[in-house]
Amino acid sequence: MPRYALKVEYDGTGFAGWQRQADQPSVQGAIEAALARLEPRDHTIAAAGRTDAGVHARGQVAQCDMLKEWDPFRLSEALNHHLKPARVAIRDCAPVADDWHARFSALERRYLFRLLSRRAPCTMEAGQVWRVNNPLDLEAMRAGAAHLVGHHDFTTFRSSICQAASPVKTLDSLEITLAETDAGPEYQFRLAARSFLHNQVRSFVGTLERVGSGAWPPDRVKDALDARDRAACGPVCPPQGLYLMGVGYPEDPFAR
Amino acid sequence: MPRYALKVEYDGTGFAGWQRQADQPSVQGAIEAALARLEPRDHTIAAAGRTDAGVHARGQVAQCDMLKEWDPFRLSEALNHHLKPARVAIRDCAPVADDWHARFSALERRYLFRLLSRRAPCTMEAGQVWRVNNPLDLEAMRAGAAHLVGHHDFTTFRSSICQAASPVKTLDSLEITLAETDAGPEYQFRLAARSFLHNQVRSFVGTLERVGSGAWPPDRVKDALDARDRAACGPVCPPQGLYLMGVGYPEDPFAR
Repeated sequence: MPRYALKVEYDGTGFAGWQRQADQPSVQGAIEAALARLEPRDHTIAAAGRTDAGVHARGQVAQCDMLKEWDPFRLSEALNHHLKPARVAIRDCAPVADDWHARFSALERRYLFRLLSRRAPCTMEAGQVWRVNNPLDLEAMRAGAAHLVGHHDFTTFRSSICQAASPVKTLDSLEITLAETDAGPEYQFRLAARSFLHNQVRSFVGTLERVGSGAWPPDRVKDALDARDRAACGPVCPPQGLYLMGVGYPEDPFAR
Repeated sequence: MPRYALKVEYDGTGFAGWQRQADQPSVQGAIEAALARLEPRDHTIAAAGRTDAGVHARGQVAQCDMLKEWDPFRLSEALNHHLKPARVAIRDCAPVADDWHARFSALERRYLFRLLSRRAPCTMEAGQVWRVNNPLDLEAMRAGAAHLVGHHDFTTFRSSICQAASPVKTLDSLEITLAETDAGPEYQFRLAARSFLHNQVRSFVGTLERVGSGAWPPDRVKDALDARDRAACGPVCPPQGLYLMGVGYPEDPFAR
């Protein structure tokens, strides 16, 4: 069966997450339902990152197997037609080899977390950022984040229900920038790693916000990491500021 | 009665526009209802720009008259509390003189129009941008826009129901930039004038999109302007990319 890679964008609001659920809307379920409109049968797709409820994606990558050969552009257009009105869109589509796998071939996941600092409630950005009332200390957050980059046992920063075989991972980068947006000052956390543990990014950002607010000195992040104890983590921040931005493969399947 | 200036942000989706309506939700009506929770009586507020249905604001300015003296910060916090869950937020509040008027004291209105170019339907940006399928010629649009800046009879670019006394206005600036956003290439039109005619910005952008697509040569914008004929205008573009960004006064009421 011909296999296709799909680059997927979605607004995670209103979805129980990527993964198909029996009784709740999911992004996977929405795309599988659209595929069934094109080739009527059961479809099972796989994705690089199984994002949680409320988490968004700009560059999720999924794969689907089709019975017939599709022109990739026509496949993405037909899927977008049948996905409406769900806030899920296929941004690109490319044929891939039979042994290429959206999840297992991936070498890198890139995430963005958006944290808006202002008193006023969100209007345009509601559900798209985490809003906090007060400005944060950027340099303190960067000092705290520096302790997290590299090869570590991240037991402190993973959910108690995380299913990864090992808590030892390599965080390739964690960069924090401050952007002056039309909504106010927005702290943007950009992270890259081969793979992430469950709730790892939200545990990092929730902890670093404590540093930015002045409640934690930056070195307490190192103490928390060294503790290898979930109880040492700061508060896990809410999901709505988190975006899966892109996935890296040995060769970019979407390169023209 | 003490008068206060309010800086207001809103997501225009789901509102019939700024102006109070008997039977449909409006931004003015939402704020007046919140004011009535603070001082129970009929309130009538005025704003610098009466935005249409679906048009957003980052920096609308309105005024309200209160019976008692309010601490401006507490007034904005109390209004934001009572505005929930409407997507309207008070970003700032300041006391102003009795003869200051949000609309009549204003010397400048600034608008932004966001035009996203991509094939895939919008997800995160749904209702917040105008999406077109194809890339546009930035230099051609700038050449077309140059004909519009200055003191002109803008009969071509105003709605047939426009109530302004004269179609002669001065457009102070119309700048177009291209931003590479996470959603794709976005053309941003920034306009400033003392005042605008009804549907003027949307008539400009709809016309300039025709130039950017290659359907119109840039000089046809001058012919359209010179015609002083509504029929010479390009298609009026949809409202959801339009934002009232700010209002200028002889002195900034929000300056600390």
